[in-house]
Amino acid sequence: MSVLVVGTVALDSVKTPFGSVDEALGGSATFFSVAASYFTDVAVVAVVGEDFPEEHVAMLENRGVDTEGLVVDRGRTFRWAGEYGFDLNTRETLDTQLNVFEEFRPVIPDRLKRCEYVFLANIDPVLQRSVLEQVERPRFTACDTMNFWIEGSRDELLRTLAMVDAIVVNDSECRELAGEANLLKAARLVQGLGPGTVIVKKGEHGALMLTGDRFFAAPAFPCESVFDPTGAGDTFAGGFMGHLARTGDLSDANIRKAVVYGTVMASFSVEQFSVDGMTSLSPEDIEERVSVLKGVSHFEV
Amino acid sequence: MSVLVVGTVALDSVKTPFGSVDEALGGSATFFSVAASYFTDVAVVAVVGEDFPEEHVAMLENRGVDTEGLVVDRGRTFRWAGEYGFDLNTRETLDTQLNVFEEFRPVIPDRLKRCEYVFLANIDPVLQRSVLEQVERPRFTACDTMNFWIEGSRDELLRTLAMVDAIVVNDSECRELAGEANLLKAARLVQGLGPGTVIVKKGEHGALMLTGDRFFAAPAFPCESVFDPTGAGDTFAGGFMGHLARTGDLSDANIRKAVVYGTVMASFSVEQFSVDGMTSLSPEDIEERVSVLKGVSHFEV
Repeated sequence: MSVLVVGTVALDSVKTPFGSVDEALGGSATFFSVAASYFTDVAVVAVVGEDFPEEHVAMLENRGVDTEGLVVDRGRTFRWAGEYGFDLNTRETLDTQLNVFEEFRPVIPDRLKRCEYVFLANIDPVLQRSVLEQVERPRFTACDTMNFWIEGSRDELLRTLAMVDAIVVNDSECRELAGEANLLKAARLVQGLGPGTVIVKKGEHGALMLTGDRFFAAPAFPCESVFDPTGAGDTFAGGFMGHLARTGDLSDANIRKAVVYGTVMASFSVEQFSVDGMTSLSPEDIEERVSVLKGVSHFEV
Repeated sequence: MSVLVVGTVALDSVKTPFGSVDEALGGSATFFSVAASYFTDVAVVAVVGEDFPEEHVAMLENRGVDTEGLVVDRGRTFRWAGEYGFDLNTRETLDTQLNVFEEFRPVIPDRLKRCEYVFLANIDPVLQRSVLEQVERPRFTACDTMNFWIEGSRDELLRTLAMVDAIVVNDSECRELAGEANLLKAARLVQGLGPGTVIVKKGEHGALMLTGDRFFAAPAFPCESVFDPTGAGDTFAGGFMGHLARTGDLSDANIRKAVVYGTVMASFSVEQFSVDGMTSLSPEDIEERVSVLKGVSHFEV
């Protein structure tokens, strides 16, 4: 088992200018694992309630996702509802029901403790650290976080950051975490907190990565029909970690390629609600977009 | 004479979180022509008042800028004062005094009417068109504009856009001009208004270009010490047009390179107040940053 993800599996109700969906499959671990499943074996550790539709579990298993760590607890599944503004750049959370997720304490099944690549999606940094304490010397670990933890659990977050190889955050979170407006300086400051690789997600503006002392800027895939951005960041992380696990190559050049695969997977995700844009891709579909992205960003001098 | 720019020459009072400057040399035609002067011959058509410091004219002439079209009118020079927010992404205009610029009607000296490359900086689209009517079959024309004209002189602006080869605007202006939130779709819509090449400036997120049916995304140069963003867009345009004029090559590949040179020139400009970051560069300084930008944006697949 190559990649382990710990995060949420949820039912999302989303409204965008282009349509709406009710209680669709969502959650960070969901988007991550579907994306990563195109590259490598992936196992999910999360919790759902007794009301969680069996068809979603079947979909994950059909994609080869290991669901042994997907615990079914008494109660209802985590639910989130949100609405996007006309340009999809602003999002309002309408409702959050933690339900079974409130008591979630990730337990890594023995069989999964030797996963070499571990992704800690955006959950309490204390829980993120408990995962790191359960796994056995992974080759590469990465985490996400958000303003809620940066503001409310900063010390715990700093302890977690000191233990991971990479952090994947959005640009406003990176600036807030660093207390620095210049994004490049902010990335360097975050790197100083522990993670050797800092990846900043900038939505339609692509991603910025700092590895060692080198910056890499990848544009977003040129999507002219963005439909629902929900899960784009977790999908990005799934493509990123999936490519690293598939290749086992942690060189700078290959980490750049991983950012490109993450970018491409996110572009499929945002074209439909839920994970619908990612359920029936071929390897050729993915490679074609990698080529397009290269064509968009390269120049000769 | 290769490149002709028509725009403003001004005295700017600028306050940033890092310092302030009083009545420093500014204006779109100034930033443009200093940047372009590193690549080709450039002539400026603008107006200043009797109070305009002779040393600024001397600086332009020392850089080889043709100032025959820089008219000195009775009255005071155009003045602008502004203040930037802590992250340099927001700017408040504190004062605008048009002064002699209020009556500016660009007259292109006969000797300059055969300039092959013409840049119409952000001025009234009626005046932009009057320039196009005075010059003799330029090879490549480009214009800038702003929300003031998009909202207040839309019909005039559309008539100008129908006559130019390229438009260089910032992202919010592109969306507003097109009435479309998706920036890629917006660029296509703007292209449909006339200019075959649409360049969207995104500040710290770089530039997006649509030429024909191909997109190109260039990251910003990784500047960790942005000091004053004033004039960055005009500087970009100067590097862009300067490279095109220097090479005389309007191929897609070379227009991409022009975007890269524009990006690099802007990076020098923002590191100091006024045009101070651009007054003593060597060709090697410029080429070095081009190489860095390539290193930042390229990946192998």
